[in-house]
Amino acid sequence: MNKSPSRLSASLGYAFRQEALLRQALTHRSYGAQHNERLEFLGDSVLNCIVARALYDAFPNLPEGTLSRMRANLVRQETLAEIAQRLKLGDYMLLGEGELKSGGFRRPSILADTLESIFGAVFLDAGFEAAQAVVLRQFEPIIASIDPNASGKDAKTRLQEWLQGRKHALPDYRLAGTRGEAHDQLFVVACHIPALGITTEGQGRSRRAAEQEAALAVLKQVGEAK
Amino acid sequence: MNKSPSRLSASLGYAFRQEALLRQALTHRSYGAQHNERLEFLGDSVLNCIVARALYDAFPNLPEGTLSRMRANLVRQETLAEIAQRLKLGDYMLLGEGELKSGGFRRPSILADTLESIFGAVFLDAGFEAAQAVVLRQFEPIIASIDPNASGKDAKTRLQEWLQGRKHALPDYRLAGTRGEAHDQLFVVACHIPALGITTEGQGRSRRAAEQEAALAVLKQVGEAK
Repeated sequence: MNKSPSRLSASLGYAFRQEALLRQALTHRSYGAQHNERLEFLGDSVLNCIVARALYDAFPNLPEGTLSRMRANLVRQETLAEIAQRLKLGDYMLLGEGELKSGGFRRPSILADTLESIFGAVFLDAGFEAAQAVVLRQFEPIIASIDPNASGKDAKTRLQEWLQGRKHALPDYRLAGTRGEAHDQLFVVACHIPALGITTEGQGRSRRAAEQEAALAVLKQVGEAK
Repeated sequence: MNKSPSRLSASLGYAFRQEALLRQALTHRSYGAQHNERLEFLGDSVLNCIVARALYDAFPNLPEGTLSRMRANLVRQETLAEIAQRLKLGDYMLLGEGELKSGGFRRPSILADTLESIFGAVFLDAGFEAAQAVVLRQFEPIIASIDPNASGKDAKTRLQEWLQGRKHALPDYRLAGTRGEAHDQLFVVACHIPALGITTEGQGRSRRAAEQEAALAVLKQVGEAK
């Protein structure tokens, strides 16, 4: 663990002026007194604001309720933990002995909290615009892939409604396999659409996440999602 | 109603580049299609972020949980409606016929939502720092008056604990009177502390708010609040 933070800077697209802030953002409360909980408070609020602004700009015709729902989807623990995994935050986090042994560096809640703390640290280090750039680097591709017609509905729901609208049978989801050890499993799910002869696969940290991925793959094939 | 927005600009300490944004922020959905609900979504999030940052800076030693509680107190409807009243937002709001007749320009929920919309409009008009200046002009005096030892507890609770710690009898709150018409009532409550021979008065839009004011007045007299 604990690779040099300079590699993290590269994937964040941001070099800290005050390295101590990055270190604090990476420090779980189990490790020491200078931990990241206050930064997480700040980061959660700046993340919410930046995502709200991005959605406001991206979807000028959507009502407030839909924007709220979209934002809740974007800033929930699952999404944040996925981004944290992509950034390999687990390699840089500072955890106490107990958390280290129990695999805390893979736990979605700790990963998500650490990511928020990093956003808070950038906000302190260089202000709102700097935080905005760092957050949007991660979130813009996700926001760009949102289908405004989906109104914040998840892929499985949208697929089901799309099939029902065409009087087709519902999709068949099957667990196609798992990878990795028990505490770090990756689920692979196959989604079969009898009426169309399409089968897709999705993978994720939970069976539900893998099903969503598989459903999204079908929606893309039939041109209902970007 | 509907005074010139230039007077509002003066009390906000901000002149809009795009006057249309201010007009939209002042427009309730009962008035027309270009209403303020999307701006309210944006304003709520930028307000939360600005207040989070102000508390983070003002109280470097307080843990995340206390900061969260303080923020919830600061951005709740009651506080926002009081600020809106001080700014006389009711004089500038655009409401539909029905809302006008039922006194919508005095309703705390509409006042609070309109204030948030104005913060969102400033954020769009000139960016985060501009919104921060406008929000802090209203909130800095409130934040400066927070007693960090109070840990976000309300004045009645603090007064009760302070008296119990000295084995004194609990305060006696009595409704001393009301003012105004039914839909716009102001309550006046007297708080008497037998052990100290102190009686204070507080007023507010609800009986509870008036009691809090009266309790705070006692805390100030005994040097337990600024």
